[in-house]
Amino acid sequence: MSAQTLLATPQIQVGGTIPAHDVKELAPDASSTLVLKGRNIIVGVPGAYTGTCHAQVPQYLDAYDEFKAKGVNEIYVVAVNDAFVTKAWKENLAPKGSNVHFIADDKAAFAGSLGLLFDGTPVFGGPRSKRYVIVTDDDKVASLDIEADPGKITVTAAKAILSKL
Amino acid sequence: MSAQTLLATPQIQVGGTIPAHDVKELAPDASSTLVLKGRNIIVGVPGAYTGTCHAQVPQYLDAYDEFKAKGVNEIYVVAVNDAFVTKAWKENLAPKGSNVHFIADDKAAFAGSLGLLFDGTPVFGGPRSKRYVIVTDDDKVASLDIEADPGKITVTAAKAILSKL
Repeated sequence: MSAQTLLATPQIQVGGTIPAHDVKELAPDASSTLVLKGRNIIVGVPGAYTGTCHAQVPQYLDAYDEFKAKGVNEIYVVAVNDAFVTKAWKENLAPKGSNVHFIADDKAAFAGSLGLLFDGTPVFGGPRSKRYVIVTDDDKVASLDIEADPGKITVTAAKAILSKL
Repeated sequence: MSAQTLLATPQIQVGGTIPAHDVKELAPDASSTLVLKGRNIIVGVPGAYTGTCHAQVPQYLDAYDEFKAKGVNEIYVVAVNDAFVTKAWKENLAPKGSNVHFIADDKAAFAGSLGLLFDGTPVFGGPRSKRYVIVTDDDKVASLDIEADPGKITVTAAKAILSKL
């Protein structure tokens, strides 16, 4: 799909089904779909190594056990970056490893199918994911929070999401 | 320009003029053109944090003084990545800093205008720069070496380029 088609997709709503799009985790040549059984957290971020993402994502790494205690199965951080970059970013943020998944949506197809892209061309060179958090019930959207300003962390802070579970 | 248009551009030849395309260095919101006075080295790489680039680029960091001794003014490492990623990559490879410039060609416009892109969609999600080295004489191409296999470092090794200067 072209960037224009991706950017024009209507935004997913609470109750909607998360499409099974191929994404990559760690390996650039292996694709699979997210495993969405029960309650999961999807954290959409504009880009690896941006200042805001670099501050937000560690909240989810640090609160992993708290999310698990609230019945969360998996946490996925999804960025429109290639898998070399998301892998390096995870190693940078979690040098001792983490059970949080760092997902490369390298064609913007996943965020695009959710209608959660913005045109990041001036800063990033192309479309990027809005900053959002989805809580899933299997592959259904149980809640959706989007930062009006992707440079801020308010409704998508780990504490804000935890307080809703 | 669309990815298809960029990928279809004829490859630049020795003697050709390097187009003055805006690229970014370190800051994602500030663009400028490469300064090409006298002899310069442009190292095109497919992507930050890939295994091969992560092995090749340090050769140029390590050999910076040798290049300077041979009359090279500037060394530019140019990747089709955003400026957040190229900045992080430089800090990773050169934690003490370096005079080698890490350039974000985030819209693939620079490599595209040189006809030096390949379709990296399966691995990277979109078009990427071939692995090449241009030696410039002002903004003219004095020599051009391209790896037939972008996963190998042969004609674009720093030693190979140094031996030609």
